[in-house]
Amino acid sequence: MPSTPPPAPQTRPTTARRELTDSPYLAAARGGTPARLPVWFMRQAGRSLPEYRALREGTSMLDACFDPEMLAEITMQPVRRHDVDAAILFSDIVVPLKAAGVDIEIVPGTGPVVASPIRTAADVAALPELSPDQVGAVADGVRLLVERLGRTPLIGFAGAPFTLASYLIEGGPSRNHEHTKSLMHSEPEVWHALAGKLAKIARTFLIAQLDAGVDAVQLFDSWAGALSPRDYREFVLPHSTSVLGAVGEYGVPRTHFGVGTGELLTAMRDAGADVVGVDWRLPLDEAVRRLSTPDGPVPVVQGNLDPALLFASWPVIEAEVRRIADEGRTAGGHIVNLGHGVLPGTDPEVLTRVVRLVHELRP
Amino acid sequence: MPSTPPPAPQTRPTTARRELTDSPYLAAARGGTPARLPVWFMRQAGRSLPEYRALREGTSMLDACFDPEMLAEITMQPVRRHDVDAAILFSDIVVPLKAAGVDIEIVPGTGPVVASPIRTAADVAALPELSPDQVGAVADGVRLLVERLGRTPLIGFAGAPFTLASYLIEGGPSRNHEHTKSLMHSEPEVWHALAGKLAKIARTFLIAQLDAGVDAVQLFDSWAGALSPRDYREFVLPHSTSVLGAVGEYGVPRTHFGVGTGELLTAMRDAGADVVGVDWRLPLDEAVRRLSTPDGPVPVVQGNLDPALLFASWPVIEAEVRRIADEGRTAGGHIVNLGHGVLPGTDPEVLTRVVRLVHELRP
Repeated sequence: MPSTPPPAPQTRPTTARRELTDSPYLAAARGGTPARLPVWFMRQAGRSLPEYRALREGTSMLDACFDPEMLAEITMQPVRRHDVDAAILFSDIVVPLKAAGVDIEIVPGTGPVVASPIRTAADVAALPELSPDQVGAVADGVRLLVERLGRTPLIGFAGAPFTLASYLIEGGPSRNHEHTKSLMHSEPEVWHALAGKLAKIARTFLIAQLDAGVDAVQLFDSWAGALSPRDYREFVLPHSTSVLGAVGEYGVPRTHFGVGTGELLTAMRDAGADVVGVDWRLPLDEAVRRLSTPDGPVPVVQGNLDPALLFASWPVIEAEVRRIADEGRTAGGHIVNLGHGVLPGTDPEVLTRVVRLVHELRP
Repeated sequence: MPSTPPPAPQTRPTTARRELTDSPYLAAARGGTPARLPVWFMRQAGRSLPEYRALREGTSMLDACFDPEMLAEITMQPVRRHDVDAAILFSDIVVPLKAAGVDIEIVPGTGPVVASPIRTAADVAALPELSPDQVGAVADGVRLLVERLGRTPLIGFAGAPFTLASYLIEGGPSRNHEHTKSLMHSEPEVWHALAGKLAKIARTFLIAQLDAGVDAVQLFDSWAGALSPRDYREFVLPHSTSVLGAVGEYGVPRTHFGVGTGELLTAMRDAGADVVGVDWRLPLDEAVRRLSTPDGPVPVVQGNLDPALLFASWPVIEAEVRRIADEGRTAGGHIVNLGHGVLPGTDPEVLTRVVRLVHELRP
C-alpha cells in the first residue's frame, strides 16, 4: 500500500461549525449522555417519502445530487416529517466520481453503471482526481442546510474506497465482485494505486462537506461484507483508515458502516471509526463485546433494526425496537438506526412511529 | 411450530446403497481418515463447462432436471473432467415444488419466478404436497448415476424450507426478503404452517433420492444468511431439523450449507448436520472453534475457497488452497469446496488444476 500519510485538509474550515451541545445524536456518538435516545434512518431521505418522489419527478438522481436547493430540500424532508435526531446529506456513493469526471450514470432499477471499467494500471493512472470546486454544489447545499436545520446535526456522506473500487472495476453493481477480488490478489500494486486514489477522492469530498459545516461524517462501505477479514485488513483497511484519519482533526464523530460485516467490526473500528454501524445479523450486545478492548472506552454503536421488519405488524416492530434499545444499553453510546437503508416500499408513517417510540425509551 | 415428529421414510430403500468404504469424501464426512484430501465444487455441474452448455442447448433448466438421461449426464460431466471426489445431483432448489404442481418457472437471468406468491393461510392450505412418484424422473436419474459413477459417491440435493419459502412468498429471488420476514413475525402460525409443508416436501424429495441410492445428502439454505441468529433459531431451525432428522436413519452424511452464515453455524449444526458448509467470510479454523463443543466430536467442515478468487492468477489460487487446507486440518474432517457455487465465467481448467493440487496435499 502507498505509505504516504493522509494529507492535511486542503483548506481551513470556512464555515464555523454550529455549537450543538444539546444534540442527542452528537452526545451519544461521543460516548456522552444524550437527553434522549437518538434515532435516524439510513436512506431516510429517499423513495419512501411521497414528497421526495414528487420533488424528484423529472430530475435524475445525479442531477438532484448536484442541485444545492434540491439536495437541501430532500435532506430536510425526513427531518420535518419524522423528527429524527440527525439529517444525512442526500447524496450518492458515486457523486464524487461523477464530479471528478468519471463517465458514470445511475440507471434506475440497476444502479451505477460505468462506461469504461477500470482494470489496468493505465486505467488507474487515467482516473481523474477530485478538486474541491467540483463538488462546490454539494458544499453549497450543506451551507443551505446548516442555516435551515436549526438544532439538528447534519451528517456528511461518502462511499469508502472498496465499494467505489468495486463499481469502477466491475462496471456496475456486482453480486460476486470477482473482477475486484481477482485484481486485488493478482495485481496488488494496481489495486492499491486505485484504492489510494479513491481514498483521496473520498477525503476531498468529506473535507468539502466539513468545510461547509457538516457536524459528523459517515463512511459507507456497502459491499465490504463480501470480503474475508484477512482480505479486508490487507487490501481495504489501509485506505479506509486514510479517509477517516484525514478528517480526524475536524473533531467530529466518524461513523463507519457496511452490510454483513459481523466479522469485520473490529477492523472497521481500527480504520478510525468513533461509531461502528451494525446490521441486523448480530445483536448489539454481541457487537459491543466484539468491539470492546481492555483499555479502550466502551464502544459506541449504531443500528440495528432489520429494515425488512418495518413491513411487519406494529407489535412486532415495537418489540424489536425495545429489544434493540435494551441490547444497545451495553454500549458506550447507542444511536438507533436500521441495519441497512430504508426500503423503497416502507410506509413512512411507520418510520415516524418508530421515532416516537425510541424517544419514549430510556437512553 | 408444529410438534409432529418427522415421519419415517414412506418407502423402504429399494436400491442397495453401494459400499464405498474407500471414498475419501465419505471418510472425511464421517470424521474418519481419508486416503486423500477430498474435493468437489458446489455447482460443478453447470454453466462453467462447455459440454454442459452444449448438452443444455434448447432445453430449459427445469426440463433438464426432469430428464433422467440428461440429469445423469450433466451430473457425470464434472466427475469425468475434474476427477472430483463426489458427484452432486444436478437439480434445482425448486424442482420438488415444480414436481408437486406449483406454477413456477426458472427465468434465465432472473431465477425462479412464482406465478402466485404465497402470503395467506389460504395460500398455504392450497400448496400441494409432493408424492414420491412426482419426482420419479429424478429417482430414475439417480439409479442411472449409481450404475455409472463407479467408486465416486453421489450427493443428493434439496433446498431448505426457509429458502423455498422465500421464493414462494416473495414470488422470486429477493434481496431483502421483506415479505418473508414480515410474514414470519406478524403471522407466525401461517409461517410455521408453510415452512412445515415445505419441510415435508424436502423430506419426500431427499427420501426419494436416498431410496434410489444417493450416498450422502446436502441441504442448501441459500438465503439463511439474511436472518439474525435469533430469527433463524425461532423460525427456521425447527423445520430444517425435521428435514435432516427424517433422513437420519439412512445413516448417510448430511451436509448443511448457506451463504453468509458465520453467525448461524452452530444453529445449522444443531439442525442435524454431520458436515457444516462454510463460506469464505470465516477462516475454517475459526469455524471449527465456533462449532466445537466440550463433549462432542471435532466438527467436520466443508469449504471455503472464495469462488471469485478462481478468477485470480494461479499463484494466488494455489496459496489460498494451501491456506484453506492448513486451516481445515484443525477440523475432525475437511472436504475442500468453494464457499459458494462455481461462477458461470469460471475457467474449468482452473477447477481441474485445483483438484490436482488438493490431491497432492496431506489430508
